[in-house]
Amino acid sequence: MKRTLINELPENEEKMISGWAEKIRDTKYMIFVILKDRSGSIQVSIDKEKNKDIVAALNGILANSVLSFTGKMVKSEYVKNGGKEFLPESVTILSSADAIPLLEESNIDTRLDYRWIDLRSVKNNLMIKVQTAFVDGMRSFLIGEDFVEIHTPKLIATASESGSDVFEVKYFDRLAYLAQSPQFYKQMAMAAGFERIFEIAPAFRAENSNTNRHTTEFTSFDLEFAYIDSFEDVMDMEERLIVAGLENVKKLYGEQIKEVFDVDVIVPKRPFPRIKLNDLYQELNKRYGYQIPDYDIGDMNAEAEKLTSQYAMEEFGHEFIFVTDFSKTKRAFYHMRKDDIPQGYDLIWKGTEITTGAQREHRYEYITKQAQEKGLGKDVEFYLEFFRYGCPPHGGFAIGVDRLTMLLLGLPSLKEEMFIFRGPSRLTP
Amino acid sequence: MKRTLINELPENEEKMISGWAEKIRDTKYMIFVILKDRSGSIQVSIDKEKNKDIVAALNGILANSVLSFTGKMVKSEYVKNGGKEFLPESVTILSSADAIPLLEESNIDTRLDYRWIDLRSVKNNLMIKVQTAFVDGMRSFLIGEDFVEIHTPKLIATASESGSDVFEVKYFDRLAYLAQSPQFYKQMAMAAGFERIFEIAPAFRAENSNTNRHTTEFTSFDLEFAYIDSFEDVMDMEERLIVAGLENVKKLYGEQIKEVFDVDVIVPKRPFPRIKLNDLYQELNKRYGYQIPDYDIGDMNAEAEKLTSQYAMEEFGHEFIFVTDFSKTKRAFYHMRKDDIPQGYDLIWKGTEITTGAQREHRYEYITKQAQEKGLGKDVEFYLEFFRYGCPPHGGFAIGVDRLTMLLLGLPSLKEEMFIFRGPSRLTP
Repeated sequence: MKRTLINELPENEEKMISGWAEKIRDTKYMIFVILKDRSGSIQVSIDKEKNKDIVAALNGILANSVLSFTGKMVKSEYVKNGGKEFLPESVTILSSADAIPLLEESNIDTRLDYRWIDLRSVKNNLMIKVQTAFVDGMRSFLIGEDFVEIHTPKLIATASESGSDVFEVKYFDRLAYLAQSPQFYKQMAMAAGFERIFEIAPAFRAENSNTNRHTTEFTSFDLEFAYIDSFEDVMDMEERLIVAGLENVKKLYGEQIKEVFDVDVIVPKRPFPRIKLNDLYQELNKRYGYQIPDYDIGDMNAEAEKLTSQYAMEEFGHEFIFVTDFSKTKRAFYHMRKDDIPQGYDLIWKGTEITTGAQREHRYEYITKQAQEKGLGKDVEFYLEFFRYGCPPHGGFAIGVDRLTMLLLGLPSLKEEMFIFRGPSRLTP
Repeated sequence: MKRTLINELPENEEKMISGWAEKIRDTKYMIFVILKDRSGSIQVSIDKEKNKDIVAALNGILANSVLSFTGKMVKSEYVKNGGKEFLPESVTILSSADAIPLLEESNIDTRLDYRWIDLRSVKNNLMIKVQTAFVDGMRSFLIGEDFVEIHTPKLIATASESGSDVFEVKYFDRLAYLAQSPQFYKQMAMAAGFERIFEIAPAFRAENSNTNRHTTEFTSFDLEFAYIDSFEDVMDMEERLIVAGLENVKKLYGEQIKEVFDVDVIVPKRPFPRIKLNDLYQELNKRYGYQIPDYDIGDMNAEAEKLTSQYAMEEFGHEFIFVTDFSKTKRAFYHMRKDDIPQGYDLIWKGTEITTGAQREHRYEYITKQAQEKGLGKDVEFYLEFFRYGCPPHGGFAIGVDRLTMLLLGLPSLKEEMFIFRGPSRLTP
């Protein structure tokens, strides 16, 4: 018999269900099994007198074992779990579980040791579904907008953008490095005439720091597109992308997210508010008495980001806000400049920067000069070549998929959010 | 003025077009520019007498520069390229190209040095679009079938499945390795209760060999799903997946593929033919006098794969064929066995194996025994733990995205197919 999903069980028809025994409770006359599959859960009520074969088969079987029952779903006013129960005629033990280690809710590091058990929770299960819907909503939007998907190499010859924080790989008789981002290669795609590209792939950072925002490996959602007039076009595209992602999440899981995470999924109104960095400094000072420290002038920091979201909500009733006009000393050399101001932005959501975007410098003589200014030498030579043989004006941005989901669901840490977290002292499971 | 795509130009209306100057031809009275964007190309006809500003601006401008023209599209019986030409009123030079290096069509290695120029060809541009459509068709199918998308770590603590052919990474004060496949982690997702997952991500192989089929980094399309009855369910899923991918390709690009690559995109009929390895040996011997060498008995090799496709076409009129019942000595330890026969298959398409799939062994005592039999020790201990605390029966497979596109379009090599190829002696661009 083919398996039926629990939430699709018709009443009073012979069916087979399969799933995890979330709980097994043995009483004097009855055994109750709460069986859970990806669609939901149901109480399986086993009458010990009538179902001697089942009772024998379940002897010694612990919760977390995987079981199949054939039988019928019936309505019952005595059952709390949805007013339904399953009356079985036979059972198959698909997998017999050992007693599972006790995982304290509060200790994320123990839970990560047994991540596959930790992920079984309703919260974590929903979290991965939500991330799927978020990314899929964004991706489908881009496909509809004529973007093509590329896969750029993660093994690269030079230490890329910065040189620090790069992992070294033994590559036959030489060294290679792990890409920190596909930045150079997505711009190569512009020089290759693709006009509109995206990539969803791992990015690697050898940062030896243990914070809630840092990980050595994360999933980056990158895009780049050509024939823009200014970085306003890039912000517009990002707005539409995020709206598409959140619409899909809200449609598929809005209610469940409210129930499980107590979070309202808000599809933001367009356009998102936009403010220049210096004007923002003034607002933060006027409203919250916040003064940006000297070493961060021309840039943001974690506290400024928090207050900026507060400001966006108070002033515009908006969860998102673009900050523009950063200092060129704080931005990458490949951002286009106009009157010496980088033509880019940060997007802040729920107190955290989720993206840096920009129009890129596509003119060979300018990009070369800007690279030199930042003291970048041989490592970017191959990249500068991309602009010598014709390259349209273009811009783009990257979003960290894990951070996005973490912020959406109000999770305290990337450790909670990622399928499997990676940090300086965590390489397992 | 906003840009209009070339194939969307209305007749006789003032519009702006932007793209590459594919050719620039300077004649006595006229300059002709073939301008190309992602939608198509058009001849821009510049009357030297009437358009002195444009002539001045184009002075010294070479082919491959990126230009914007404002003007009007008109129909003209004198123009070969679609019977249309563009009569410009002004031009903007978006990017001025140097003379491009001469790339011999025949020499792939020179072309790879300038991959971003090589990718501009009609063939290569279409190739990436086709790959996007192939993958997107398959992915959309899976999303519709309740699969969730996961992102598994590429940095791992132990040398994974085999130990050989693994890249070492300096990971702070210890070593890490680059994942050869997400196999262990997609099975972890089964133990985590996700039931149906997929991942599209890079996989790494430190194989020091230079063939058309090998690369050190490729994009792997992986899936795994639970509550299967046998590996027949896995083959069924793969059939439906491939049909969905090819349907999308045919719909969007079938005609262009015929025109540019002279390839008919065939959406295969289901079910695909299936044959046991020993029966296949007999057929290949009877039909083609082919005898599998002793060291390959229980397995396939490149020549057998070629002949198998020939057989599938002759006997079933089918491009695809599943081969089952390999020898357990030739299959991974995690394939489930029944009467000592691995419960898996290879799928052959156009003379090449594109996938190995199987039902996995999900029972702790069996998988542990099978790992020991293959002499696998500490490296798989963490993986065996996944099966101790309950795990449903499951199966899955992986497809190399690059190889798939290569075979579809009849390309001679992965070097031609990948956005940027990586091999033992190729880490650039």
